[in-house]
Amino acid sequence: MSAATNGKLSPVSVAQVVIDDSFWSPRIETNRTQTIPHEYTQCKETGRIDAFDLTWKPGDEPVPHYFWDSDVAKWIEAASYSLAAHPDPDLDQLLDEVIEKIAGAQQPDGYLNVYFTVVEPEKRWKNLGMWHELYCAGHLMEAAVAHYEATGKRRLLDVMCRYADYIASVFGPNPGQRYGAPGHEEIELALVKLYRATGNERYLELSKFFIDQRGQKPSVFQRELEHLSEEDARINRHFFEKNGFDTSYCQDHLPVREQSDPVGHAVRAMYLYCGMADIAVETGDEELLRACRRLWDNVCSKKMYVTGGVGSSRHNEGFTDDYDLPNKDAYAETCAAIGLIFFAQRMLHVDADARYADIMERALYNGALSGISLDGKKFFYDNPLASNGDHHRQDWFGCACCPPNIARLIASLGSYIYSESDTDLYIHLYISGHADLSAGGTPVKISQQTDYPWDGEIEVEVAPSEPAEFGLNLRIPGWCRKAVLMVNGIEIDTAPILRSGYARIYRKWQPGDTVRLHLAMPVERVTTHPRVAENIGRVALSRGPIVFCLETADNPVPLDRVVLPRDAELTAVFDEKLLGGVVKIQGEGLLMDDADWDGQLYRFEPVKMRPYPLTAIPYYAWDHRTPGEMRVWIRSL
Amino acid sequence: MSAATNGKLSPVSVAQVVIDDSFWSPRIETNRTQTIPHEYTQCKETGRIDAFDLTWKPGDEPVPHYFWDSDVAKWIEAASYSLAAHPDPDLDQLLDEVIEKIAGAQQPDGYLNVYFTVVEPEKRWKNLGMWHELYCAGHLMEAAVAHYEATGKRRLLDVMCRYADYIASVFGPNPGQRYGAPGHEEIELALVKLYRATGNERYLELSKFFIDQRGQKPSVFQRELEHLSEEDARINRHFFEKNGFDTSYCQDHLPVREQSDPVGHAVRAMYLYCGMADIAVETGDEELLRACRRLWDNVCSKKMYVTGGVGSSRHNEGFTDDYDLPNKDAYAETCAAIGLIFFAQRMLHVDADARYADIMERALYNGALSGISLDGKKFFYDNPLASNGDHHRQDWFGCACCPPNIARLIASLGSYIYSESDTDLYIHLYISGHADLSAGGTPVKISQQTDYPWDGEIEVEVAPSEPAEFGLNLRIPGWCRKAVLMVNGIEIDTAPILRSGYARIYRKWQPGDTVRLHLAMPVERVTTHPRVAENIGRVALSRGPIVFCLETADNPVPLDRVVLPRDAELTAVFDEKLLGGVVKIQGEGLLMDDADWDGQLYRFEPVKMRPYPLTAIPYYAWDHRTPGEMRVWIRSL
Repeated sequence: MSAATNGKLSPVSVAQVVIDDSFWSPRIETNRTQTIPHEYTQCKETGRIDAFDLTWKPGDEPVPHYFWDSDVAKWIEAASYSLAAHPDPDLDQLLDEVIEKIAGAQQPDGYLNVYFTVVEPEKRWKNLGMWHELYCAGHLMEAAVAHYEATGKRRLLDVMCRYADYIASVFGPNPGQRYGAPGHEEIELALVKLYRATGNERYLELSKFFIDQRGQKPSVFQRELEHLSEEDARINRHFFEKNGFDTSYCQDHLPVREQSDPVGHAVRAMYLYCGMADIAVETGDEELLRACRRLWDNVCSKKMYVTGGVGSSRHNEGFTDDYDLPNKDAYAETCAAIGLIFFAQRMLHVDADARYADIMERALYNGALSGISLDGKKFFYDNPLASNGDHHRQDWFGCACCPPNIARLIASLGSYIYSESDTDLYIHLYISGHADLSAGGTPVKISQQTDYPWDGEIEVEVAPSEPAEFGLNLRIPGWCRKAVLMVNGIEIDTAPILRSGYARIYRKWQPGDTVRLHLAMPVERVTTHPRVAENIGRVALSRGPIVFCLETADNPVPLDRVVLPRDAELTAVFDEKLLGGVVKIQGEGLLMDDADWDGQLYRFEPVKMRPYPLTAIPYYAWDHRTPGEMRVWIRSL
Repeated sequence: MSAATNGKLSPVSVAQVVIDDSFWSPRIETNRTQTIPHEYTQCKETGRIDAFDLTWKPGDEPVPHYFWDSDVAKWIEAASYSLAAHPDPDLDQLLDEVIEKIAGAQQPDGYLNVYFTVVEPEKRWKNLGMWHELYCAGHLMEAAVAHYEATGKRRLLDVMCRYADYIASVFGPNPGQRYGAPGHEEIELALVKLYRATGNERYLELSKFFIDQRGQKPSVFQRELEHLSEEDARINRHFFEKNGFDTSYCQDHLPVREQSDPVGHAVRAMYLYCGMADIAVETGDEELLRACRRLWDNVCSKKMYVTGGVGSSRHNEGFTDDYDLPNKDAYAETCAAIGLIFFAQRMLHVDADARYADIMERALYNGALSGISLDGKKFFYDNPLASNGDHHRQDWFGCACCPPNIARLIASLGSYIYSESDTDLYIHLYISGHADLSAGGTPVKISQQTDYPWDGEIEVEVAPSEPAEFGLNLRIPGWCRKAVLMVNGIEIDTAPILRSGYARIYRKWQPGDTVRLHLAMPVERVTTHPRVAENIGRVALSRGPIVFCLETADNPVPLDRVVLPRDAELTAVFDEKLLGGVVKIQGEGLLMDDADWDGQLYRFEPVKMRPYPLTAIPYYAWDHRTPGEMRVWIRSL
């Protein structure tokens, strides 16, 4: 099946791409050798894996949670992508064992959920609004597709098709079927993946059904409450009943085609928008696409941190008012940044516009990557942009959505670098390695060599199996003010060939052709729209795709007293010994002195400043040394 | 009795002073004709006054509250000061009626508290830590002394002496007497007033006893809990048991002589420190005085708003960490600013140092005066230094401590202007009017003529009944960088005659001598110690004793986007039509523009600024127009 019938671009699978990159390869290896085993151990030790044995009895501790299945599913997905890129017989076998357990938990009718099989079987499908039944099903479907594509094994895919068939028999518009939509979106995008893997249109229809159930009046979540006991309805009420019956927490405030403003829980929102984009592409639904574009634009122009973090409020783990982007209290869940990457990739494939890739890259290198420690075994759930030293990565979480989410993102990184179309190839991300692509039917091997993100020099080797005409599109990042492009040593003016943020080189490519792209990568001072009150009078430092921050470890002074004059020179220095090897930014800042205050609290003289050499490190790498303050937004003069 | 045996200065009573001042006289008249009647009506309508009839029975609504007596007491005190300055037969009679009710509530043993007589009589003296029994007694004592001094009538004074005698029989160090201290301090300073009015040293001893009970190990409040039911102990636990048994909420963490750091509930702290200063002065207790000075210095150098507000946290209505002075969330209770004024006046009398008068003036014109509306009938409980438009003065409060507190302050303003010593007269505050004082036994009439606080020109006429040698001390305010002094038209260099912030003119004064003081009063930019994070990069505007603020009514733009360049000229303009006649400050500010952002959230170009003419008004006068934003601290470049 075509993966993007109506989109301009088609995705490239993990298996087509080899990453051999000084920045990413060690991370992917850490993911394979540390993160994925660590997360398996956590799932195992917390009972998540053995829960599929269905041996739980009342009184046993721990009690399986209704979202446990999804953690194991995301681990399977991560491990499968890893396997696709790197053979590992032990992991292969471990996956088979876990999948066998899951298969064994499937009920005769196809149903598959630990909690609602052993703990509260009488509550199956009773509270789609708050219990993550369909969400877990979705993650297991994604896992099944990933495992199938990585290994060719159909075991989990078949199990999940049976489960999907059963779900499709329960939910739908036909007589004897019931209404309903998942409170936590996920199954919508997963059903499209299942459809693409199997060609079974029933899954596409079911995904569309769930998407269209959202935002009806009365809300499916309100109708559902009628069956619930007072106790079971408690959480629903907590979220929904504050203002009348407001289900915006799970994007149920309006029919999806009428939505413009991202609201509610940010991860749910991102997963929904992914599903909407998928359905729009598969069905040619322009109205739905327009909604996706509006939602995208609103997220990126009013509700996104400079790190690509979204969902600023801890209260609803989600969106609040436009421009409400507090730094220290930022929620910016790792999963939400990952969800934004998923959404970005989908929109990129629809519109072939680099503005999506810009945000995809921003979230990847900053708000998502910060979610995992350099050693691959500690995780942020929330990713604030300022800290007083009391926020640290953890081994695991009771609600453990983020750790396997970042693991599956890193393991599948290969699929974000390139895209294909009938006539063109696209390079979105600059990461060393090579890929086996196809342009207009001709196999083309593309190789990249770069020290990105630390350096803006990229060499691309284009090797069609035989000379062939096609367009090669290289993204000129939004952060780049000056790009120099050379084909086989001859400079080409990018202006006339720029298409939606890509320099398109259309020619008859010969094996051995090389393209050199130089992206000027000076240190930049980022300012925020003045409606973001917290950032007024402050700048963030960025260089290339990387957002920087100050940490006490490098700047042992009160960070709110550090000031960066507008004309201060800033220098980027690669420090191989620092934080696994990073570019750090050094500059002549100022420090507000308190030496001459002598017991005064107020005075008429201005605060005195003294020179202070400041050092900024990449935001993703913060919280790896002695705990202290952290600030992305630096006072500016 | 001498009012200040060991202090350097003696206070001057309300009756000695006539205020005839363009700023204060209208306020005092509003206080007399609007505030005091309004507060009587509130006390009457809420049942506070008739509660003294003791007719309450179980089931009746409202149930008297255990702090109600204090509200009526402070009203009596305010009305009495008003009567001392302005004859008013109706008010005189109303006072007599209310006092008669109170007298009628006194129990045969002298006890006098509505709540613990009619609602829960079995709980008398059971929970001094949280129930305001001794606090109410203290306020009634202050009321009794004020009424006696204003009218010569002993009715309430005698009642309260009987009550004080009874309290002195219950509490004390002797066999058969019990331990204890009030959770909410007040009676300590009140007993000293009662002692000064009557000469009965028993009251002084009782005050000292209560002060010395504080901070013992085990805490008197911990010992008390043993008698309490779990339900009654609930509130105590809420405040005390969080960290072990921490009674710092009511300044019980250390014996008073060892205290240095102001902690806990700010009003309680201020009233305690007043009592400590009173006892120190009366008993010559230098150790206690040193504690008072340490506490004073810490409050003023680390924990005070620029308005003179203290107690930054809503959580404990009190003190937190040094330099923790949030603006929008400032608690800064009106009563606490008033308490700081009380404490300042006491320390001023001890040390004859203008630094106390500076703070007294700061709190008077800003953090206390903001507590009452221009029409005298609405009140702030908390006085934030920034608002988004949702904080407004109220008619009254369930816990109504602030309204009668500001009323008694304004009614007794005459007693804050001057002091006497054996050899000198002092002018602390510049307020037009005259006073009948005494210098070394010679009656001296002092008259002031000034447009202070709007103008720094002060004319003082000195009229001894016969030529007499004494020192006349005029305060050179801490905010003033240039003062010019003339005696009978001849300029005198202030530097050689400056004594602790006062220009001391010692000479043989003749009737008709005049002194002219010119205090330069430019608009000043105030900066804060850089440890106050919220005020970094911001200035407050002040002129003379007045602190200014921006309000939306004058500046209909987002106030966080207004920037004041350091070199912008600022002009003070008296506007007689604005807010009852105020000086406003006008200047060429800048406004951060958002017109050129065009859907961007982040960019590399700095925010553009456009000229914006800003207008600041006195802080005390904010919240009298269409609700909007308010900011004391203005962004500065």
